[in-house]
Amino acid sequence: MVTTIREKAAPVRIGIDIGGTNTRIGLVDVHQKLLAEAVMPTVTGEPKEIGAAGGIGCSEGTDAPASVKYPAEAMIGEIGRKTLALLEEQGIAMDQCVGVGIGVPGTVDRKQGIVRYSNNIRWKQVPLASMLGEYLPLPIQIANDADCAALGEAVAGAGRECQDVVMLTLGTGVGGGIILDGEIYESKGIGGSELGHMVIVEDGEPCTCGRRGCLEAYASAAALQRAARRATGKDLSPEEIFAEAGRGDEKLEAVIAQYIRRLGVGIVNIVNIFRPQLVLLGGELSAQGEELLEPLQKMVREGCFGGIDGELPEIEMASLGNKAGMIGAASLI
Amino acid sequence: MVTTIREKAAPVRIGIDIGGTNTRIGLVDVHQKLLAEAVMPTVTGEPKEIGAAGGIGCSEGTDAPASVKYPAEAMIGEIGRKTLALLEEQGIAMDQCVGVGIGVPGTVDRKQGIVRYSNNIRWKQVPLASMLGEYLPLPIQIANDADCAALGEAVAGAGRECQDVVMLTLGTGVGGGIILDGEIYESKGIGGSELGHMVIVEDGEPCTCGRRGCLEAYASAAALQRAARRATGKDLSPEEIFAEAGRGDEKLEAVIAQYIRRLGVGIVNIVNIFRPQLVLLGGELSAQGEELLEPLQKMVREGCFGGIDGELPEIEMASLGNKAGMIGAASLI
Repeated sequence: MVTTIREKAAPVRIGIDIGGTNTRIGLVDVHQKLLAEAVMPTVTGEPKEIGAAGGIGCSEGTDAPASVKYPAEAMIGEIGRKTLALLEEQGIAMDQCVGVGIGVPGTVDRKQGIVRYSNNIRWKQVPLASMLGEYLPLPIQIANDADCAALGEAVAGAGRECQDVVMLTLGTGVGGGIILDGEIYESKGIGGSELGHMVIVEDGEPCTCGRRGCLEAYASAAALQRAARRATGKDLSPEEIFAEAGRGDEKLEAVIAQYIRRLGVGIVNIVNIFRPQLVLLGGELSAQGEELLEPLQKMVREGCFGGIDGELPEIEMASLGNKAGMIGAASLI
Repeated sequence: MVTTIREKAAPVRIGIDIGGTNTRIGLVDVHQKLLAEAVMPTVTGEPKEIGAAGGIGCSEGTDAPASVKYPAEAMIGEIGRKTLALLEEQGIAMDQCVGVGIGVPGTVDRKQGIVRYSNNIRWKQVPLASMLGEYLPLPIQIANDADCAALGEAVAGAGRECQDVVMLTLGTGVGGGIILDGEIYESKGIGGSELGHMVIVEDGEPCTCGRRGCLEAYASAAALQRAARRATGKDLSPEEIFAEAGRGDEKLEAVIAQYIRRLGVGIVNIVNIFRPQLVLLGGELSAQGEELLEPLQKMVREGCFGGIDGELPEIEMASLGNKAGMIGAASLI
């Protein structure tokens, strides 16, 4: 494979998926094929006092003098060096690379190439594109990680036949990626696409965003675990919850039914707004397959505006797993 | 004004806003100025049995033989003749007209120029564009009326400085129009943009769409009146409700506070998804001005994802009133 690339000098795009735990660097060809990949732990470190002078990406407030340093420079340096090593290992010259796309878990200013804020990796106002450009002299684009995962699925995964795809990633939180006409939907304003932060239960469970009753507060894996804990007093993984319910635990059956019902309310809301061709579910809970899909499909058929006379989307599981982010990031280029 | 047009033969677009009660026909210049306007009652008539042969726009089911006739042909004929009369009255020749845009209250297939379904005017599968084309030999575009109103405000009204505008029309129902990059957002699928049919209160009030707890079931003028009736036993108009609350009626004060709170939940949900530059409120209730806007602006500041660090939209009242639909429809061309 590598030899073929070298012989043809076919263009390669670099797709980087910065996650809360691991960072994945992929080389992607024009056919959306992942040619090679490297994984490294995401090093966020602890906030470190460095005095008022501060450094890039270390300000606690955008206007205040910097007082806490997060090692954004160190991490970006690691990513740059690891990418260069991967290119060398694969025998790919820099002039064969057409650009770098990066997915970041947080709020991103795509036009400026700046990570506005990421709670997960503890970055604030980090000019990621220009900083990584010191290692990789290529066009660099950045986007939110949930958007990149949705884009990856839309170009190369379960959504590759579709132009309009909404993907919900059900993990620690509920991430939403919206692909319209084959492109990430992004408003002029920073932020947006926060499908998980749509209130579906007035005055409901507290959400990390400060409101109550958001979809995320019911449809995340963490929310499922919380509901199971309340019902049984036990700390169970999502897999265990589904397995024990499958063995006839009625309390957990009820927990799952309620979980699916609320996820379904959120999905129908989203369909009524975007009317995509396809809704994809990714993340931890997508392993549950038909047990989730079947009741959700029923809710969409029965609940969407216009009913079955309208054009209803399919609901499917995402298919690329943890490769979606890299492939989608590469597609930013 | 008319003379100027004739002298210059400046291009004119025809914008038609078909409403549940009135249909408005406007002539709009390149500066989005409404040059002339005609109003006619919308004639929907009663469904009439015409046997199995049926006619255009009269099928009860898309596949079933037609058995009920709605006078779509008659009404479209009226619109065509009225438009021709307006052009003649204003001394505008057909070759000065660049096209016709039409806003329709219902689900519209814009590409095919077909009204899929309108409960308000009792149309089903009406090929509006081709039927009106028999009277007006011009390019004809159709769209949903709430989308047209939003587009009108975005090009010529309260949103004319903005590219990304969401408009909620608070009337009998809650209509939503989404303008992204200056264009109506429309998914590939038919339908969508149904911002009023987003559940915000699980298992809440029944909604006309068949679900429970939709924004429309709380934020329409009808919902406000229903809440006032429950609280006071009286049938009051929205104006009366606000006026009596202003004079110190505590029950109605509570009704209004609850109304605003739920409208605010819906608006924050919408901002978290679209992050528009501007949210506009139109329809009956927009007459209430600051009394509505001030608490809603507070909810947006406090409730949106990312809080005041994010880029928050303005919330304002629409400014074009019942002209917005015509101007927006003309902008489809």
